[in-house]
Amino acid sequence: MSLIKIIEILAILVGAFSGFIEARSKRMDVVGVFTVAFITAFGGGTLRDILLDKRPLFWVTHDEYAILIFVLALTAAPAIRTLRKIVSERLIVVADALGLGLFSIAGVSEALAAGMPLFISSMMGVITGVFGGILRDIVCNEVPMVLRDGKPYAICSFVGCWVYLMLQRADTPADFSLWFSAMLISALRLAAWAKDVKLN
Amino acid sequence: MSLIKIIEILAILVGAFSGFIEARSKRMDVVGVFTVAFITAFGGGTLRDILLDKRPLFWVTHDEYAILIFVLALTAAPAIRTLRKIVSERLIVVADALGLGLFSIAGVSEALAAGMPLFISSMMGVITGVFGGILRDIVCNEVPMVLRDGKPYAICSFVGCWVYLMLQRADTPADFSLWFSAMLISALRLAAWAKDVKLN
Amino acid sequence: MSLIKIIEILAILVGAFSGFIEARSKRMDVVGVFTVAFITAFGGGTLRDILLDKRPLFWVTHDEYAILIFVLALTAAPAIRTLRKIVSERLIVVADALGLGLFSIAGVSEALAAGMPLFISSMMGVITGVFGGILRDIVCNEVPMVLRDGKPYAICSFVGCWVYLMLQRADTPADFSLWFSAMLISALRLAAWAKDVKLN
Repeated sequence: MSLIKIIEILAILVGAFSGFIEARSKRMDVVGVFTVAFITAFGGGTLRDILLDKRPLFWVTHDEYAILIFVLALTAAPAIRTLRKIVSERLIVVADALGLGLFSIAGVSEALAAGMPLFISSMMGVITGVFGGILRDIVCNEVPMVLRDGKPYAICSFVGCWVYLMLQRADTPADFSLWFSAMLISALRLAAWAKDVKLN
Repeated sequence: MSLIKIIEILAILVGAFSGFIEARSKRMDVVGVFTVAFITAFGGGTLRDILLDKRPLFWVTHDEYAILIFVLALTAAPAIRTLRKIVSERLIVVADALGLGLFSIAGVSEALAAGMPLFISSMMGVITGVFGGILRDIVCNEVPMVLRDGKPYAICSFVGCWVYLMLQRADTPADFSLWFSAMLISALRLAAWAKDVKLN
Repeated sequence: MSLIKIIEILAILVGAFSGFIEARSKRMDVVGVFTVAFITAFGGGTLRDILLDKRPLFWVTHDEYAILIFVLALTAAPAIRTLRKIVSERLIVVADALGLGLFSIAGVSEALAAGMPLFISSMMGVITGVFGGILRDIVCNEVPMVLRDGKPYAICSFVGCWVYLMLQRADTPADFSLWFSAMLISALRLAAWAKDVKLN
């Protein structure tokens, strides 16, 4: 399995986790919890693939991920309300930041591989990174977190995507470029959140 | 015309009806009423076809349905405000439950015919059944009904889709499988609603 | 460059402008401002192309428009808060009306060229004209303007699209049909707004 796929799978699990928590806090039933987790985990990548007209979709050929999320929803959902009390706001933000980094880099590298121009590739990275969470919040009728907290979010993804594109152009080994830029995005987001940076 | 198509057409009319009522209660003009009715009627199936990359879309090749909804919007819209007073909440829930059953089964059988794996087919059934209503509520800026009332909804569709898949596998005659599982979904939803079952 | 493309570019600029203003009034950062402007400018056309299964998307092959909007977001965003005080509500409505006319006609003519039936073509015109603004408002968590003010909006687009289709059928020179019907839509919308016409 390629490194990109490993990164995408990590991002999917992180995304599903943040979906679980938000759906449970809305008191949704098990199918609702699954749906929100699924949208969060696959929403960004699916939008990217629809825009690039790439089929079949990742989760259609690999239905084991959908089934995994479903089993987790069945088994974990009842426990998550208790979990929620233990899980601090901080943990959610960390999970979300990891997801942002992993998804963004998976997105930009897939778009580049599909022959998109540089700027469009960076946009696809941001879309993949940010849209799962936006769709999660729209379905749950919340103001998207990316707007809500007024702190740098999409811009961290954008910077990291360009770092990735520059590293690729400089012939840095692919493994290093991927992990370095994904971690950079997560770190930037966490730093911006911790330092209470406001951009406006 | 195949049975699936008859079922899909019934679902479209039921969906359009629930769209009419919600749009009128928002005091939208005739094009707005048409738009919301159209989105409710075709939203789930269109999303399914985009995910499966199936073209042309049903309503593009059969523009008579779009025209029918438009004529209904033109003629029925002025009457619907009065209608609304007569139409009880109960009737809306019944229409919605019928639509849920019909759309779900149309969705799962189309996905199965397109060669999707079983679990993905069942998800496509739920998406087709549930998304028209979700899109209707998002466009009207309401919390989706599927979340709002805290009663089993998507899960009824999910159960019925699996009953359909099992019946198909057991070589039950297609006609019977289709109608039985569609009616099962509607019945489950209505029973859950009437009994005030809460899942959480 | 064909006249249609010139019209679409004008519409894109007008759309981006209304996106800038709405995003700034939500105090979004520069990437947020860019995203909302981009969605408003390309949302309707992208949805139309996804429904028609037309690829690559306009903004993917012509990435200069995405870059232009990005540069405008970078340079204009800091200035727009001051601008906002100068820019009256009236100017926004005028820009929005121009965008509605230009996008609608670009949409209907592309759909007709893709061999869609007449009614579906007119719907594609309305979708292209109206959806950028709807997506902008959904992302910003606002009730879509098309519903908000209770004045004719989508219906102006619909009437103009049919005028275009009739002019085309009557073999009127393409240039004239395009401009006349685009301006007609804008004029209808502005007249309806100014006269405080209410449709319900």
